[in-house]
This record gives sequence, C-alpha cells and structure tokens, in this order.
Amino acid sequence: MIKAELLTIGDEILYGQIVDTNSQWMSVELDKTGIKVVRKTTVGDQANEILTAFEEAEQRADIILITGGLGPTSDDLTKPLLAKYFGCGLGMHEEALAEITAFFESRGREMTELNRQQAALPSCCTKITNPIGTAPGMWFERNNKVFMSMPGVPHEMKKMMTERVIPKLKEKFKTPVIHHKIIRTIGIGESFLADKIAVWEKSLPPHIKLAYLPSLGEVKLRLTAFGNSLPALQHEVEEWSEKLLPLAGDYIYGYGDEPIEAAIGKMLRERKLTLSIAESCTGGYLSHLITSVPGCSDYFLGTMIPYAYEVKMRQLGVKPEVLEKHGAVSEPTIVEMANIVRAKFNTDIGVATSGIAGPGGATPEKPVGLVWIAYSDKHQTVTKKLQLSQDRAINIRMASMAVLNLIRMSLPKA
Amino acid sequence: MIKAELLTIGDEILYGQIVDTNSQWMSVELDKTGIKVVRKTTVGDQANEILTAFEEAEQRADIILITGGLGPTSDDLTKPLLAKYFGCGLGMHEEALAEITAFFESRGREMTELNRQQAALPSCCTKITNPIGTAPGMWFERNNKVFMSMPGVPHEMKKMMTERVIPKLKEKFKTPVIHHKIIRTIGIGESFLADKIAVWEKSLPPHIKLAYLPSLGEVKLRLTAFGNSLPALQHEVEEWSEKLLPLAGDYIYGYGDEPIEAAIGKMLRERKLTLSIAESCTGGYLSHLITSVPGCSDYFLGTMIPYAYEVKMRQLGVKPEVLEKHGAVSEPTIVEMANIVRAKFNTDIGVATSGIAGPGGATPEKPVGLVWIAYSDKHQTVTKKLQLSQDRAINIRMASMAVLNLIRMSLPKA
Repeated sequence: MIKAELLTIGDEILYGQIVDTNSQWMSVELDKTGIKVVRKTTVGDQANEILTAFEEAEQRADIILITGGLGPTSDDLTKPLLAKYFGCGLGMHEEALAEITAFFESRGREMTELNRQQAALPSCCTKITNPIGTAPGMWFERNNKVFMSMPGVPHEMKKMMTERVIPKLKEKFKTPVIHHKIIRTIGIGESFLADKIAVWEKSLPPHIKLAYLPSLGEVKLRLTAFGNSLPALQHEVEEWSEKLLPLAGDYIYGYGDEPIEAAIGKMLRERKLTLSIAESCTGGYLSHLITSVPGCSDYFLGTMIPYAYEVKMRQLGVKPEVLEKHGAVSEPTIVEMANIVRAKFNTDIGVATSGIAGPGGATPEKPVGLVWIAYSDKHQTVTKKLQLSQDRAINIRMASMAVLNLIRMSLPKA
Repeated sequence: MIKAELLTIGDEILYGQIVDTNSQWMSVELDKTGIKVVRKTTVGDQANEILTAFEEAEQRADIILITGGLGPTSDDLTKPLLAKYFGCGLGMHEEALAEITAFFESRGREMTELNRQQAALPSCCTKITNPIGTAPGMWFERNNKVFMSMPGVPHEMKKMMTERVIPKLKEKFKTPVIHHKIIRTIGIGESFLADKIAVWEKSLPPHIKLAYLPSLGEVKLRLTAFGNSLPALQHEVEEWSEKLLPLAGDYIYGYGDEPIEAAIGKMLRERKLTLSIAESCTGGYLSHLITSVPGCSDYFLGTMIPYAYEVKMRQLGVKPEVLEKHGAVSEPTIVEMANIVRAKFNTDIGVATSGIAGPGGATPEKPVGLVWIAYSDKHQTVTKKLQLSQDRAINIRMASMAVLNLIRMSLPKA
C-alpha cells in the first residue's frame, strides 16, 4: 500500500482565517489513484516546525505532498527549507526563469525582482512547470520516497496535480486498487441502522471496510474494498451492497453523490409528476432544497409560505373554522394545507409543513419541536407527526428532510 | 503562550468524503481566547495511528482537542483508545446514562444497547455533557496538559466548545487578555473596502490587528487587541471602530455575531413594518434566511415562490402581457412581482427576485447569473439588476444577500 501524507503550511490556516479546501480535493484524487492518505498535517510559518514536519512525514509516508509557503514574500519558507532538508543550494533555474518571464509577458504585466526569485530553485529538485502561475512545483526523491511541493492557490495546485503530479506518481509507484461505494439512507438513525445490519457487517471480508457517515437527517454508509483488480472489487462490492437490500432497503434512497433532493427530483421526473409546497415552520428551506437541484423547473411549480395566520386563511385558503378549532399546528390544518396547495397550484402532488420551530411559540400541548407534515396526491393524503429538538435550525432542517422522505415513501411506484 | 493541537479522527476525512469544517471553526474560537493553535493533524480509524498521534500531540501542545470517532458504531475507536492511553478502564457512567436516557425520552425515541454503551466512559475522565446529542465529551488531565474529546458532528461540537470547553480552558490556563470586535459590511468587495480604509488601517497601533473575513455576499472586519486590561482594550477598540464610520459607514450593517437577516429583522421590528416576499430564482433561500431568525413572525407574513410561468400569472397575478412582452427576468416583471405580493399579503414592504440561476435557462440576451431584484413600499419601488456567476448555489446566495441589502438601503429612516 502506497502511503501519502498531506502537509499544509501557513499561519492563515492554523488561525482559521482561510479554509483549507485543497486537502480534501487532494484526498479524493489520491484515493481514486489507489494511494492511501494516512495523515494530514498543518503547520505554521515557523522554520523549525516545518523541518520537524518534513522529518515526521518522511518516516510515515512514501509520498509527501506539500502545499503553501511558496509565494514571493518573506514569510514563505517552504523552498529554502526544502533545499536545507535535502542538503543542496538554491540556484537560478534558467528554464523556470524563462517560463515565469513568459507568464508575465503574456499578461502584459511587469515582473519584479521578487517574481524573478521564484525561479531560484534547489539544485536537487526536478522543476514541475506551473502553467497558470508563477511559483514552480518542486519534486524531490530520496530513498524511494517523494516530496512534492506545490503552490497553495487552489486552481494552480489542482492543475499541477492533475496534469503533472498524479501521472508522475503512477509511473513511479505501483499503485494498488481501491474501490468505494456510498450507500445513502434516510429515515433511520445510525444506531438503529447498525442494529439492522449488524450480522451483515460482521460477515464482511477483511479487505472490505464499512464506515457510517451520519449527518442531520440522513446516514450514509461507505464500503471500501482493497485489492488488485478494479472490476473484481466493483463486482464484489456490488454483491455486498445488494445483500443490504433485504435488511435496510426501505431506507436506502440512492448511491454515490446524489442527495435526497436530487433523488426526489429524479423520481418526479421519471413519473412525470409535478410538485407544489405549502411550508410554514420550515420557512422556505424545503423549497430551497428542492430548487437547489438544476432543472427542477421540470417538476416543481411553486410554493406558498403562509407564515402568518391571516396568510394561511386569506392567501392559501385554509378554512377559518379548521384553524380556529385545531390551531395552525394540527393534523386537520396540515391536511388542508397539502390538499389546497395541490389544487391551487394545479400539481399532482402537494406537501406541507406546520410546526413550532422555536424557541418561542410553544404551548403546553404544543411544545417546541412539534411539527406536522403531509403529502397529498389524487389517491391519498398521508400525514406524520414529528417531535424534533429544541434547536430552531435543526428543526427546520430535520422537518424538511422528513418531508423529502415522506415524498419518497408515498409516491406511486414507477 | 498556551499551545493547542487539533486532532481530527476519521477515515472519511482522509479519503476526502467529508470536508472538515470543524477545525477551522475551532481555530477561530481558540484564537479569540488567546490560545495558539500550533498544529492540525488528521489520522484515520486505525488504533496505532491514533495512539501515536496522541503521543506526538502531548509533546507539542498544552491542549489537545480531539473530534470524531465517538459514534456508537464499531469503527469508532477514540473512547477505548483514550482509556488505554490514560491507563484506566471503561465503566458505565450513571449520570451520562441518565442524560442519554433523557435525551431519547424527550424525543420519544427508543434507545438501543449501542446507545446505552455511549454512557460507558473511561473512569479517569471528567464527563462533559452533550446537551444536543448522545456522545458525551471527555476531559482528561495529566502533567498540566488537557486532552478533550468531542463528537465530530459540527453542531454538537460547537455547542460543547462554546458552553463547556472554552470556559473550562480559560479557567485552567492563564490566557492573555484579548479583545475582538467584528464589524460587518455588505455591498462592497474586499479590495474596494481595503482601498477605502487603507490610511486608517496603517495608523492602527501595533497591539491592534485587523483581519478581513470575506464570505459570499459580505465582508467582515475583525479588530483584535492584545493587552492587560480588558476595559482599556474595549475602549480603545471602540474608538478605532468609530473612526471607520466616515470612511465606510454606508456599508456597515452591524457588529458582532448578528447576520444581515437578523439586522433586517431588527430594523423592521423597530419601524413596526411588515414584509412579504415573491422569490423566483432564489427558490426559497431568501425566505429561509429571513425565517432563520427567531421571532420573525413579528414582521414576516409570508412568501410566494412562483417558480413556474403559470404560477407567476395565476397565483401571484403578474399580468400576462407584461410577462409575454418582457419575460420573467425583466424589470417590468420584477416591479409587478414586488408590488403585487405587497398588496396581496397586505404588508408594508414587498420584495422580489427573478433571474437565471443556471446552469440551464439562459438565452443570448439573458445569460446565467442575470438576476433582477426589487423592493416596494407605499412610497417607492426600487429595482436592481445583478450579473452574478456561472454557479447556481452562488447565484442563489448572492441574490438573496443583495435583496437583504436592498431592504437595508431602502427602508425609511427609523
């Protein structure tokens, strides 16, 4: 197994002033290549910390991918420290100088002495061209290990990784094969899911690992298989994945990167059905999820958010006697809301939410976190009562996810 | 200087399947407390890697903050490894068990044996209550160093950090006196703002530092003052903050933690004005921002999302001749939308959005990223044309922020 460590250099990341998006991207790319990331490390702009990090990483990994600390300013230490670490001097690299000069000429910008100095490289490295920036990459080899230093600017790093570094790493190392599959579930908590699939999980072979990835309103499962042949691993993972269906199939809504709102969109499009929404306590978040999917206008026609009592009556048209007798947060009202929005917007399906998102608005009978949701089509109206949390943002998110799951469960079979 | 290391545990982060947003948030919070983050480390779900990381971190830092690996499932190793590392056994913690039981009871959910096991804690740790989740935090002390293990779920970790861990760290370690002030601006880009305040920035004394914190649709400024006396620092920062008003006061909408949607809410409440929304391309996100503020029902009455052409005409009531002549994304249509929703919902103010969020739906005259927004009250109707990006999510966010800023600029003086 080829091991990699990602080393990020920069005070701005330690202090939280910028978010490190590079390392996640690099992880995904290396993972696809069959290189195992064993550690991520971030250190600040201090020479001794950086040198220590070099030493530690060299002991742990075969490949050390370094980003940051390559700019022209004096707080950028990566280059001189790599020269020191590998025991060679810095000298002007004529080809790098020509590339940097051409870079500035092509943009009609003047080159400063600081920019010129970016072409001074450790004599013991191989220069890796930076086609869209001024700081070249540096490739070092020693004892069959590779140190690769890249700029921290995301688009420069990504281009250099994709076009130069990954191919060079594949050439040098015999990379093994890894295959992942993400299985997406909704409507069941992590521990209940774990109970249901415990026997299956225990019977997984040692080269296939399972991970639970829970987030608000859903739980993803990740199967990771290690081996020599990608088709064989894919086949094997498919088989194990299929064995889950009798155990937890009711909760599985999809695979891979597709979130529930996109899965619902696909189901609606396949069935040629249209959707409208009357959302009160979720306040627009449910519609936002639905409309975050490109192309949603194929099936989503519109929403009414009747936040105020008067709007529920006058604009949406909930009967005053229903509202007065049962209140806005009640089963009779939610049934009205879903049926009325479906009729008014002339859609196949109407869904609705009404609840106490909190922190205010509760009564002894209707506590914070109480939410009614409903689904309506021409055959049926389905309601569900939820008791969520004390937290407004969580209630909004969880109620919206519950409606998406209610749609999934209630739609006619394709 | 008190040093901290952030240790994140989980294969899903090494493989890039989830983005670690926790460590940036923690960096910011620790920085505000005067604790210096010296390293961030991520390791996978392997026992030996985790134990090595504990050892290394203990050598480098005074405080080791650990997230992840605390779920009820078998791939979560943090708890048994901490017990091993600190040389004590796991035992049922009765108070933790009572808290977890109460957590499930309050939600009317059944508790499994796996959930029960979350109350088994190392006997050498202090339990830190998790008020919104099931995995308790664990505080270990040895040789004047602290290991603190927290759940990886962001909202659970944040609540635990803010309410329990930071106060406990302040108590244990003598942290220096630091005072921060956040100044929130909207409607101006980072580099334009920097130009406007350049002279002011240069004249700041060395013990007051300025940071730019740009995010989608706004730029926050953070002033950080270091010293011995908190009242003196507060006074000094106030003086510097006031000097900004003549330079950039038009863009400053507030201070501290209050986002623009809460600032708008305050302005509406103070003026006793009500708001309704007709949002098309923003698809519910604008309403979601407004309704994420507790108590918004004091001023927000409701929204229509007329996503489809027919809904714009039949439900909202935009005149067919206006739609046919100018199209849905046009100034005449946006004026109609804002005026009509204000009249229909019987509010003081109506706002509207219509645009091409992308990636589809563009024409040669109406490219992706073109958005019209409008504000209407009984005195005036104000419109604005935006040309945003190629990215759907960014366009939805930026257009919504632009409407909030348009409300701020257009409301009558209090």
